[in-house]
Amino acid sequence: METLSKQKTVYKFGNGTAEGNGSMKELLGGKGANLEEMSLLGIPVPPGFTITTEMCTVYQNQGREMTLARIRDEVLDGIRHIEHIMGTCFGSPANPCLVSVRSGARVSMPGMMDTVLNIGLNDEAVLGLAAKSGKERFAWDSYRRLLQMYGDVVMNIKQFTENGHDPFEKELAAIKQAKGYASDQDLTVADLQELTATYKELIKKYTGEPFPTDPHEQLWNAIIAVFESWYTERAVVYRQLHDIPDTWGTAVNVQAMVFGNMGKHSASGVAFTRDAATGEDIFNGEYLIDAQGEDVVAGIRTPLQITLEGSRKWAQAAGISEAERQENYPSLEEYMPEVYAHLDEVQQKLEDHFADMQDLEFTIEEGRLWLLQTRTGKRTGKAMVKIGMDMYREGRIDRNTLLQRMEPEKLNELLHPVFDRQALSQATLLTKGLPASPGAASGQIVFFAEDAQAWQAAGKPVIMVRIETAADDLKGMAVANGILTARGGMTSHAAVVARGMGKCCVAGAGAIKIDYEQRTMEVNGQVLHEGDWLSLNGSTGEVFAGQIATVEAELDDDFNELMELADKVASLSVRTNADTPETARLARQFGARGIGLCRTEHMFFEGDRIKLMRQMIMADDEPGRRAALDKLLPIQRSDFEQIFEAMAGYPVTIRLLDPPLHEFVPHEEEAQQELAEEMGLSLEQIKNKVEELREVNPMLGHRGCRLGTTYPEITEMQTRAIIEAALNLQKRGIEVHPEIMVPLTGTVKEMVLQKELINSVAEAVFAERQDKLRYLVGTMIEIPRAALIANKIAEHADFFSFGTNDLTQMTFGYSRDDAGRFLPVYLEKGILTDNPFEVLDQEGVGQLIELATVRGRNFNKQLKLGICGEHGGEPRSIEFFNRQGFDYVSCSPYRVPVARLAAARAALTVNN
Amino acid sequence: METLSKQKTVYKFGNGTAEGNGSMKELLGGKGANLEEMSLLGIPVPPGFTITTEMCTVYQNQGREMTLARIRDEVLDGIRHIEHIMGTCFGSPANPCLVSVRSGARVSMPGMMDTVLNIGLNDEAVLGLAAKSGKERFAWDSYRRLLQMYGDVVMNIKQFTENGHDPFEKELAAIKQAKGYASDQDLTVADLQELTATYKELIKKYTGEPFPTDPHEQLWNAIIAVFESWYTERAVVYRQLHDIPDTWGTAVNVQAMVFGNMGKHSASGVAFTRDAATGEDIFNGEYLIDAQGEDVVAGIRTPLQITLEGSRKWAQAAGISEAERQENYPSLEEYMPEVYAHLDEVQQKLEDHFADMQDLEFTIEEGRLWLLQTRTGKRTGKAMVKIGMDMYREGRIDRNTLLQRMEPEKLNELLHPVFDRQALSQATLLTKGLPASPGAASGQIVFFAEDAQAWQAAGKPVIMVRIETAADDLKGMAVANGILTARGGMTSHAAVVARGMGKCCVAGAGAIKIDYEQRTMEVNGQVLHEGDWLSLNGSTGEVFAGQIATVEAELDDDFNELMELADKVASLSVRTNADTPETARLARQFGARGIGLCRTEHMFFEGDRIKLMRQMIMADDEPGRRAALDKLLPIQRSDFEQIFEAMAGYPVTIRLLDPPLHEFVPHEEEAQQELAEEMGLSLEQIKNKVEELREVNPMLGHRGCRLGTTYPEITEMQTRAIIEAALNLQKRGIEVHPEIMVPLTGTVKEMVLQKELINSVAEAVFAERQDKLRYLVGTMIEIPRAALIANKIAEHADFFSFGTNDLTQMTFGYSRDDAGRFLPVYLEKGILTDNPFEVLDQEGVGQLIELATVRGRNFNKQLKLGICGEHGGEPRSIEFFNRQGFDYVSCSPYRVPVARLAAARAALTVNN
Repeated sequence: METLSKQKTVYKFGNGTAEGNGSMKELLGGKGANLEEMSLLGIPVPPGFTITTEMCTVYQNQGREMTLARIRDEVLDGIRHIEHIMGTCFGSPANPCLVSVRSGARVSMPGMMDTVLNIGLNDEAVLGLAAKSGKERFAWDSYRRLLQMYGDVVMNIKQFTENGHDPFEKELAAIKQAKGYASDQDLTVADLQELTATYKELIKKYTGEPFPTDPHEQLWNAIIAVFESWYTERAVVYRQLHDIPDTWGTAVNVQAMVFGNMGKHSASGVAFTRDAATGEDIFNGEYLIDAQGEDVVAGIRTPLQITLEGSRKWAQAAGISEAERQENYPSLEEYMPEVYAHLDEVQQKLEDHFADMQDLEFTIEEGRLWLLQTRTGKRTGKAMVKIGMDMYREGRIDRNTLLQRMEPEKLNELLHPVFDRQALSQATLLTKGLPASPGAASGQIVFFAEDAQAWQAAGKPVIMVRIETAADDLKGMAVANGILTARGGMTSHAAVVARGMGKCCVAGAGAIKIDYEQRTMEVNGQVLHEGDWLSLNGSTGEVFAGQIATVEAELDDDFNELMELADKVASLSVRTNADTPETARLARQFGARGIGLCRTEHMFFEGDRIKLMRQMIMADDEPGRRAALDKLLPIQRSDFEQIFEAMAGYPVTIRLLDPPLHEFVPHEEEAQQELAEEMGLSLEQIKNKVEELREVNPMLGHRGCRLGTTYPEITEMQTRAIIEAALNLQKRGIEVHPEIMVPLTGTVKEMVLQKELINSVAEAVFAERQDKLRYLVGTMIEIPRAALIANKIAEHADFFSFGTNDLTQMTFGYSRDDAGRFLPVYLEKGILTDNPFEVLDQEGVGQLIELATVRGRNFNKQLKLGICGEHGGEPRSIEFFNRQGFDYVSCSPYRVPVARLAAARAALTVNN
Repeated sequence: METLSKQKTVYKFGNGTAEGNGSMKELLGGKGANLEEMSLLGIPVPPGFTITTEMCTVYQNQGREMTLARIRDEVLDGIRHIEHIMGTCFGSPANPCLVSVRSGARVSMPGMMDTVLNIGLNDEAVLGLAAKSGKERFAWDSYRRLLQMYGDVVMNIKQFTENGHDPFEKELAAIKQAKGYASDQDLTVADLQELTATYKELIKKYTGEPFPTDPHEQLWNAIIAVFESWYTERAVVYRQLHDIPDTWGTAVNVQAMVFGNMGKHSASGVAFTRDAATGEDIFNGEYLIDAQGEDVVAGIRTPLQITLEGSRKWAQAAGISEAERQENYPSLEEYMPEVYAHLDEVQQKLEDHFADMQDLEFTIEEGRLWLLQTRTGKRTGKAMVKIGMDMYREGRIDRNTLLQRMEPEKLNELLHPVFDRQALSQATLLTKGLPASPGAASGQIVFFAEDAQAWQAAGKPVIMVRIETAADDLKGMAVANGILTARGGMTSHAAVVARGMGKCCVAGAGAIKIDYEQRTMEVNGQVLHEGDWLSLNGSTGEVFAGQIATVEAELDDDFNELMELADKVASLSVRTNADTPETARLARQFGARGIGLCRTEHMFFEGDRIKLMRQMIMADDEPGRRAALDKLLPIQRSDFEQIFEAMAGYPVTIRLLDPPLHEFVPHEEEAQQELAEEMGLSLEQIKNKVEELREVNPMLGHRGCRLGTTYPEITEMQTRAIIEAALNLQKRGIEVHPEIMVPLTGTVKEMVLQKELINSVAEAVFAERQDKLRYLVGTMIEIPRAALIANKIAEHADFFSFGTNDLTQMTFGYSRDDAGRFLPVYLEKGILTDNPFEVLDQEGVGQLIELATVRGRNFNKQLKLGICGEHGGEPRSIEFFNRQGFDYVSCSPYRVPVARLAAARAALTVNN
């Protein structure tokens, strides 16, 4: 306690100086650190200070009083620093110093946490502000905003109202309706005075407490409210979704208020140093005249473009004439050329300084530019690759920095489908909105997040349609194929969140009228209902009626070059899980270097094959089974030939039959009757056999090498098919590397017996063909016991392939099919931080993998190590496998690029 | 090789001298070592020598020629030793030296391996033997026997015949039938001469090789045949059954032949120094005049008693008059008083020397006594205890020797009823299943639990016959005399429950086909109906048709004294698994010191309880569940009160609800309809709920603390019931030690949340009652992941109780209910040496236990460690738990004495 209390808790900045800098994100949050850095760079930022993230934890653990005691002196010193620079006085009625109180975590959590502006106003100070600024309406509007924000954020007024409704908004709407106003801008000074009086009454009425007139009390309460907002449910959910630890906490930034709403020479805006959707090197952004920053983000008024070029493009897309554009929608470049020039200089400086695309917030107060924030700009996958590759080629970042900046999951967006051109040409364009997040999507219309979840759970693809979105809609957006909003710009909540999710989004399609009650949307007279099909092109902003077929995206040169750079760095090789030649070819296009898991059972379901399979199962003795297997042999051989050919030159790991036999027999009477007739058996006999095969826990039953051990003839047939296929290809001059994989090994002797069998069949085929080739025999490690005795198994195996799906099931004792009943609760209660079937559980399952890896390699230096479970394509898991010295990961074809990039990043992590 | 070949391979004995001694069992086998020892003791044994067990391994690894090269010189020296003592000459036609060649492993494997007698005879020597002995018939009969044994054992004649029939026996039977002879004794010299000629022809005909006339060739071949017999299939199976390593090998004993069949002054016999059935200190045994040893064992002629007392008792039982007895069935004591006196002296000397009950084989040749073998006598469980305790009290063995000699499993015989011997001899064996729960039972067949209850209520003893059992069947099993299932292994539901109830059970009798509709069971073509009598031997797995009288076991003072001695030595405490006060009381009688596992779910099946349980399950919200739980609370509390009272003074570990909820709902439409009416719901609603609860792999599903975590109200109710019950008893002055156990923990946070909940409920109850008590909160370790993170869990647990059933299921990936499909094959192929559900798998599962134990104790020095899986009553597993420093094992009541003894033996093993 003593040592802690001597730590610095507040860092000041402003006027070209700062106590911290941009590298201090952990302590000061992203926003705070960048404000310090900007100030050091001589960029105009409103003076202020940052309270450290450590105080957020102190608040959580020790409460309000202890926290305030720790920060009080330094905060008051920070206030004096602001007063000094701004020439104002906090708490003075005549010359009031107003401040904003904002959150700022280590990473951006848009819209998740709270902000209070205009702290420092009260009934006297509002008069002083009016007198000093000469703008009475501005002063009263600022006071109105303070009351509204403070009442909401600090005093939690909605907690006290019925159904959580907002009494301020209701009152505001009432007065506007009574007076026939179209917008807030129409409110007069008298209206605002009446409103502030009403707001104060509402606060007293609902919360039982009066609005505090003491600016210091306002300040302390607002600081605590920001800390508190780190722990709100929606923030917790967001962090879970984005894997942000609760312990990071948020910093609090207190800054002098600057006003974009002081009249025609004031404005607020947001800007990106490059195009966040395409990655093109074009400065762009939006601004609103006479508005505060939140007005731009909220998407209530249609924002204007910052650059002339951007403005013209926007007008063209919106069908607005150049004359009308100049008149009503001027760019900042035209409207305030000097300020624009300053802003352009600042954005250049910031991008050069950070060597990355920046997302800026600025305010122009009476013609003077203030930067409120700079941060690394969120971007689409396409933009991520393009910006990264451009900067790499320009020599602004090196290869490792490039790779470390790439988010593997975002590559998914580049791999997403686009509309089929043919299908698109026949589609009906309904309207156009903003191309907020690229990709193409079709789905059925839903208007509410709960419906989105329910419909998606029922297997229906959905498009979520909202006037605008809020944090509550997150869960619906997460499951929707695409998102369409009627309001809001490129930086609206919907747009930012959708890009973060890599999900198609069209925002601000103003022509759409949505009726939540009727569950309809109307576009130019056409009414669409909940459940109707809708298609969105998030790259163009187009909205189509009906369902449109999609085709795969094409990978451009930037992407390919990036992948090649990744491969140079990675030590893990990336293979794919593929059961068909088509899948194998697709994965190869995505850069897979072999097959890590070829499941042979899928081959037994098509057409006549299933009949032969059933014939084998129904046979009561070995000769009967062999007769059926003999007929399956040429079919399997041909399958393997095609797969080997598709993967020529690369290893192909083929897993011997794995699932329990009951998966192959019919379970409904009609199909059983059919089978009975086909096989010349009675329905009774079929039913008995099916019943005999029934298992209480099939997952832990008669499957994997337990089948190959009890029915060695299955292993024999499959081995023969593999070896014969490989020899056939080798004869044709095609390079083949078969790897035969024994599933579900749990004892040494299973491995020994299966290996002996495989080798003896291979030798027999070699003798028959007078030819031979090299092949490997290895095993899945997917049973906890196999991991525990890996040293003994390794003596008899050329490779281990970790089946992390089953290993996770057995190590946790979770059935993947049944865990849905408790996993959501477990994630919600924080019992699990991730779904262990998505992200490898390093704490438990990882121990077994590490143990098996170390023991296996100790006894067999040549042992190849790979992974073929779902985790093979998951970046955090890949980092773990890389650390264990694995040779390869194997994942589904579409995950291959993600895995290649993750493998490179993992290699860099180890080397650093 | 060089060093090995200098090792001594042959040890001679005879005439009061010996090269080896009784301690050399590993090298010389049990028989050989004891022959050496007897010779040293001056007891008359036919002179001979033993070829070491090492040569058996040499034979296996290096083959016949290398083995013979190694032993040749020493064997020939041994033959000279025999010739010297007996004054005969091996290979001489005039004065032939005949020898026996017998196996002799470290432990006795009765009837498993081969013997060849009369080696040294051929067409010339038989004449010499006849001349020398003056007994022509004896000589030819000896030759006939040699041919028959040699042809069978050495030349494997049966391998060459159709269906493996014995051509010698066929020929012997033919000649007896042709001549109208009743017994072999009637064969004349001419008959025997004819037979020997025929036998030689048969050998040539079937094997293609002539019978070797060279005695040396006979000898070498016989020695190799004995080594070979160690590796026969039946011997391998026997060793697997008795856990004898293949590597031990057998020794070969070559001895001078002595003949009990040289006429009226010759005889052969076997004797026990004490009664092998009752343990009484009575010398007893049987002999046959003019017979070889195998005639006695084979039971072809009715043997006579050795002692007069034994003879009189025998005659009385058989209804034979004293006059007739004296005439036709004289005792050896009467028939050859001097020889008897010598034998009595020898048996005394041997028992004194070995300080244990001996099993002797002897031959009297022309009035001279020869001891062929002495070994520790096999005995019943009752005799084991009595003999051990008698010798201990007599000071002939110390406490540790006593305990080490006791075989824990044999105590079972003392604890359960057995069939009356007389009645059993007339019973018809139907089939055999697994000996799932020991004891003997007779009753009338019923197929349904309701019938079992009704019939039992009507005074009819029943045997419940099911394909397999489920929770629904509990009430039927509770009233049945015994349980028979067609499916399921040693740890199936039926087996586990039956053992818990101490009820006889035969499980997995696969030959039985049950037709529930017809209410019949079919075994090998025989159909039995409901109501037919059936008898089960749960100790052997035998199923008999009809009713067989049983006798109850009684626990005598010897038993109790033995148990007390065991407890003094043991470091492990033995608790019991008990769910009812009756079981708890029973277990306490057997010496249980607490309950290690009280399953609360069984309490929910009786009467109205199941209705309340179903009401809770059907409730769609927490208030609904709480309403039902409130009604269950007083019932549970009362259960706990009774159990605490039955175990007063000892700890009682209560496991919170564990099974998935679908085990409590009805799965058949009729019962569902009934439930619907009871609950005022539609059948549809019930069906939907049942379907909703259905799981693909219930073993890995929503159960254990996953229930307690998703429905905390269940944990709350159970905790309240436990604490209230304990306080109620404490108020009455009864000592209670409740231990609350969280099942199926897999993550630290599950444990933390459940513990917080338990503590908060306990605190609430303490406050309400203004009273408190000490209780422990711990967890099962039954999920592999729990073992891996045991260090972290241990921080929050007072105790770990290893649930080795589930831990085995998950570590192996075996479902106990389904593993029956491959486990038999796995045991047969030697993939597993034991069923891991019976004997703890130390190689795999044991690693997890050791790891959890070490990690747990490292982080929590006070951590109590116990085991409550099936392995808690298995001696080899108990040795493992003792080695790991466990505090207690817990097992079903009837296993408690077994576990107490095993715990003592385990402690001795560690100390030695």
